[in-house]
Amino acid sequence: MLKLEAYLEARRETVEQALQRCLQFRDETASQQKIHDAMRYSVFAGGKRLRPILCMAAAAVSGGCETEVLPAACALELVHTYSLIHDDLPCMDDDDFRRGRLTSHKVFGEDMAVLAGDALLTLAFEVISRDQKDQPALAVLQAVRDLAQASGSEGMIGGQVMDILSENHALSQNELQQMDNLKTGALIRVSLKMGALLAGAAPDVVKALCRYGDAFGLAFQITDDILDAVGDSEKMGKMTGADVKQGKATYATALGLDRAGELAKHAVETAKAALKDIHGDTAVLEALADYVIKRES
Amino acid sequence: MLKLEAYLEARRETVEQALQRCLQFRDETASQQKIHDAMRYSVFAGGKRLRPILCMAAAAVSGGCETEVLPAACALELVHTYSLIHDDLPCMDDDDFRRGRLTSHKVFGEDMAVLAGDALLTLAFEVISRDQKDQPALAVLQAVRDLAQASGSEGMIGGQVMDILSENHALSQNELQQMDNLKTGALIRVSLKMGALLAGAAPDVVKALCRYGDAFGLAFQITDDILDAVGDSEKMGKMTGADVKQGKATYATALGLDRAGELAKHAVETAKAALKDIHGDTAVLEALADYVIKRES
Repeated sequence: MLKLEAYLEARRETVEQALQRCLQFRDETASQQKIHDAMRYSVFAGGKRLRPILCMAAAAVSGGCETEVLPAACALELVHTYSLIHDDLPCMDDDDFRRGRLTSHKVFGEDMAVLAGDALLTLAFEVISRDQKDQPALAVLQAVRDLAQASGSEGMIGGQVMDILSENHALSQNELQQMDNLKTGALIRVSLKMGALLAGAAPDVVKALCRYGDAFGLAFQITDDILDAVGDSEKMGKMTGADVKQGKATYATALGLDRAGELAKHAVETAKAALKDIHGDTAVLEALADYVIKRES
Repeated sequence: MLKLEAYLEARRETVEQALQRCLQFRDETASQQKIHDAMRYSVFAGGKRLRPILCMAAAAVSGGCETEVLPAACALELVHTYSLIHDDLPCMDDDDFRRGRLTSHKVFGEDMAVLAGDALLTLAFEVISRDQKDQPALAVLQAVRDLAQASGSEGMIGGQVMDILSENHALSQNELQQMDNLKTGALIRVSLKMGALLAGAAPDVVKALCRYGDAFGLAFQITDDILDAVGDSEKMGKMTGADVKQGKATYATALGLDRAGELAKHAVETAKAALKDIHGDTAVLEALADYVIKRES
């Protein structure tokens, strides 16, 4: 466990520096500085950088170089951050706090929060298409397409729509899984896929990593739901119990904490089993799968 | 003039069909249908398809094929449409009508309008990276980058931020031009640039078309401001005089109608002068420059 912490810390530092470069702008006008400040506020809010790290780990296990996929890794974090800003808006979840700090619209106003989210989503596609010097253009173009698909109306946004439409409705376990598979799973899955494809992985390795990503995403989401129900709001950095209050269907409310916990453990085993088809060193991805249900925030 | 109308009508029809294909989704779930309906509502609201047509015209004048750049042309329209949906939101311009119909948030709710905009922006990058079968991957990747740059915080979004921050402030003509250059100009300019680059235009042709785009964008924006001040609200499909009411700086309010009209005419001449450096048949682009200040909506 201690070794994974050191691994995560080192990768987080690398991603942090790369994101700093993504959000450095020359010759900012006063109004550009205003929007860039809003973008930086949310990007540098102490996130775990899980998606970039999964992308880098997938590249490494595919025999590629972690730093070469940094632009894709940063793009994933930018998409993730934009989705949080828009999710928190008054017309969506109406959250005042995120990661222990005021949400974007509380600090910069609703108009700036909408635009900061828009700008981060746009920047994601600029970063991924700009900085991939060592990758073949066709592979990068596929990464652009995969990222857009995973984030769009048939991916992450589709999940958010299901979430909104399902408020105060009871969802079956299947429907819940379908929703989370889109809302959280699609971006986690594509993190692994992009890392593998950009590193030139063979098709069966890409497939195995996608299966890992699907199971990982499920374990991640169930754990999020459990933490929302029982977690320490100080460690979580936001009000816990919010899902229940908003009448949202979660694994914790639908299955109860015990069965939800079992399902998460089962998903971790499924994720680890998918790694058996890969010949590279999968120790990090195994440890990450274990970590995802043990985290406290 | 009659010939241009026929040209525009034919291109509009081509773009319309291509956009229909972009917004066709297989196996829609109920919630996906909801977001796709919202996306289609705004995309198929009778827009002029000016940006796609400029992109196609730039490709043609560069010796390329108009239909080959259709994915890029559609991506431009998707980005333009998303920006209108978000601009109309209650926290932005708070507009109830657009093109003679209720705005997205009035029909689908504010949450769906935010997500429909997000999904259209995302779809733009999926479409441009997905369908460019006949283009070299490097050129498409540059188109992705150019589109993102023109739409982002240093382009269109930057202009929208300036617009918001300038409400109830007097702007100098220079500041106004800087704002419009970003808010409207950047996407018009990149429409021409993308069409040229994807058609394999020589660098001096690309540069000439960018100069044309800059001047065209200026003429377009000044005319928009004049139409907002004096136009027929029925033809415009929205309340006119809205800029003045919101205390927004426009060319019409800053310069007066006469001087604004002169500036627009001068911009059209500048646009046409830029075409002199191009050896291809520039008749369409010339006619488009004339058209942009003569239109009534």
